[in-house]
Amino acid sequence: MATGNSEFPIMHPVTGFRLGTTSAGIKTPGRADLVVMEIAEGSTVAGLFTQNAFCAAPVSLCKQHMGEAEPRYLLTNTGNANAGTGEQGLIDAKQSCESLAAAAGLAANQVLPFSTGVIGEPMPMDKLLAAIPSALNKLSEQGWAEAAQGILTTDTRPKGASLIYQTNQGAVTITGISKGSGMIKPNMATMLGYVATDAVVDTELLHRALRLATDKSFNRITVDSDTSTNDSIMLVATGASDVVIDEQSFEYFVEQLSQVFIELAQAIIRDGEGASKFVSVVVESAADTQEALAVAYCIAESPLVKTALAASDPNWGRILAAIGRAGVKALDVSQVQLRLNAVLIAEQGGRAAGYTEQAGQQAMQPEDIEILVSLNRGEARETVWTTDLTYEYVRINAEYRT
Amino acid sequence: MATGNSEFPIMHPVTGFRLGTTSAGIKTPGRADLVVMEIAEGSTVAGLFTQNAFCAAPVSLCKQHMGEAEPRYLLTNTGNANAGTGEQGLIDAKQSCESLAAAAGLAANQVLPFSTGVIGEPMPMDKLLAAIPSALNKLSEQGWAEAAQGILTTDTRPKGASLIYQTNQGAVTITGISKGSGMIKPNMATMLGYVATDAVVDTELLHRALRLATDKSFNRITVDSDTSTNDSIMLVATGASDVVIDEQSFEYFVEQLSQVFIELAQAIIRDGEGASKFVSVVVESAADTQEALAVAYCIAESPLVKTALAASDPNWGRILAAIGRAGVKALDVSQVQLRLNAVLIAEQGGRAAGYTEQAGQQAMQPEDIEILVSLNRGEARETVWTTDLTYEYVRINAEYRT
Repeated sequence: MATGNSEFPIMHPVTGFRLGTTSAGIKTPGRADLVVMEIAEGSTVAGLFTQNAFCAAPVSLCKQHMGEAEPRYLLTNTGNANAGTGEQGLIDAKQSCESLAAAAGLAANQVLPFSTGVIGEPMPMDKLLAAIPSALNKLSEQGWAEAAQGILTTDTRPKGASLIYQTNQGAVTITGISKGSGMIKPNMATMLGYVATDAVVDTELLHRALRLATDKSFNRITVDSDTSTNDSIMLVATGASDVVIDEQSFEYFVEQLSQVFIELAQAIIRDGEGASKFVSVVVESAADTQEALAVAYCIAESPLVKTALAASDPNWGRILAAIGRAGVKALDVSQVQLRLNAVLIAEQGGRAAGYTEQAGQQAMQPEDIEILVSLNRGEARETVWTTDLTYEYVRINAEYRT
Repeated sequence: MATGNSEFPIMHPVTGFRLGTTSAGIKTPGRADLVVMEIAEGSTVAGLFTQNAFCAAPVSLCKQHMGEAEPRYLLTNTGNANAGTGEQGLIDAKQSCESLAAAAGLAANQVLPFSTGVIGEPMPMDKLLAAIPSALNKLSEQGWAEAAQGILTTDTRPKGASLIYQTNQGAVTITGISKGSGMIKPNMATMLGYVATDAVVDTELLHRALRLATDKSFNRITVDSDTSTNDSIMLVATGASDVVIDEQSFEYFVEQLSQVFIELAQAIIRDGEGASKFVSVVVESAADTQEALAVAYCIAESPLVKTALAASDPNWGRILAAIGRAGVKALDVSQVQLRLNAVLIAEQGGRAAGYTEQAGQQAMQPEDIEILVSLNRGEARETVWTTDLTYEYVRINAEYRT
């Protein structure tokens, strides 16, 4: 199950960024599961990674390599997360980098490794290493769509976003792909996301842009409140367009970048495991951002709210209960208003005067649901995107390894 | 679905505490749904209530009445929670108390009201008021088993616990009932719990005992991380045994009381919505209690861990991921050990050397599962009880109102 439009968008190539995808047979024979991305010399690269203490071996190594050398290759496999694999996991991740670096005539620390899939299984290194040359042979600036397939695990669809915007120096392209549909509550990153632009952006600005765009996108989604061990998002600026991003043009660049990021993040929610609803939880007139997010996540992660959503049941009592346990200090419940798809459902601590069960039922029918909570105690407003909780979610996650 | 033994225990009467149960037809015609409990004059009474800001009208009134007068009656209905009902909810709860008080020749604030069931529906007051005399007529010290039935909602079984212990002044009886199977993450109380003893306990000691016993029982369980709007637990000491609890005998009294509380709390988990496993999450050698609880709840509330439990799948990677995102400062993952039903599964950041998938599969077969996490960084140890997450949970909660 998934919601919304399943069409894969047109992916504008980014000069200086090539992608090659192949099948290493890591988990399923014949399935595309190995992706190499090549970054032109002189590009800038920024990354954000999971804050899970049990972060995977490739995540540790990625961070180390980024501190040591100029990254030139991103190496991604699916089918095995190389997480919970202890010392051997690090050795395996290093060997992958060495093998690709040797083939490309570079140093091992110019390769950044990424893995996603089952946790705790040793990486089938023979298969992975044997497939690297084939991925290198396929490198192409047209390789986005194939790569979007090659990084998937339980996802039912590839996820891509791409745009071109004009500046007085010329056109800038931003193109990216993402994957993930379960264990989704990123904290500073998503499962996996790769975005490239041909703008010229220095490393400091690129990091700032990445953080700003992520805070509006990948850091505002939750499927099941589980933060993965492997979340990584990479942003590459090749500079091939010669359009320089400076302090003046930065804000507009971040706006455009955020648009691509939000599309990629929302695509993950639309493809959330077992999802039959795409739910925007908006908390407005909160005292501050922290409070708005606390309430939004309390609603978005409540199993009782999520099962009611699956049933298209306007069970607003469960939403009030979630607001009430979010830990908002001195919350005046008589001031809280709740709307489901613009229908005023509850206010003054109870059901709204004009509300009818029929109106509520109707509001819950669409695939896209907006839960709007007005706390009426301040100016902050935040949005979190999530899914409903269905039988299908339980089936997928009870059967994932079998 | 439910786990463990379904036999209802022998309930020792508590002199001075009578219970009367009847059917008011609040939600389902003919079903027992109204319970009156009568407390003998001179008893002491302590209570703990939900910390949900959207607490139900009866909870607000309960707290107010306890501050004003000596409680003599507890009035409980199921089928309607009288929560999210605004001003009318308070008027209704007051009227219930007035009606019972008039019949008993007492003041309205000597009656404490409790409600559980659907949130946000107006209380059918005619039915409720009409049934009060019938409940009063049935008052009996033998009424525990009937009352245990009369307070249920989606529960599949009544929940009771009872013991008698000896002191040098004579025997003390402690008997109690509880209800709840969804929206279970009490914070200072459970859905509903009523425990009575014939010991003589002054109000200050009784409150201390209630808090200590609750912290070891109802405050250590979670089905779905949702804190209800109506959680309440009441402890009554009638003093009929003439055994006086003082500072000397207090500790032993709390031990016995805790045993009853733990049985009642565990019964809620064994009857958790859709539960096919009873799961004890034990975190040991943590730096402090807060840290131990943070890790335990992160595991106990992870949908991915809970779906793996439903499938009897030793998917320990998901447990490591939950430990890793619990926010433990400077966690040395190489020191963490994980055992499933005493089988060492993971250590040194990965799979344990001697572990086999077969041993893991075997460890997951029993209905009762212990997840034991050793952080190896301190002395604190805490246990949290929870259930798995099954299709049945989704079915119950997607269909609850329909």
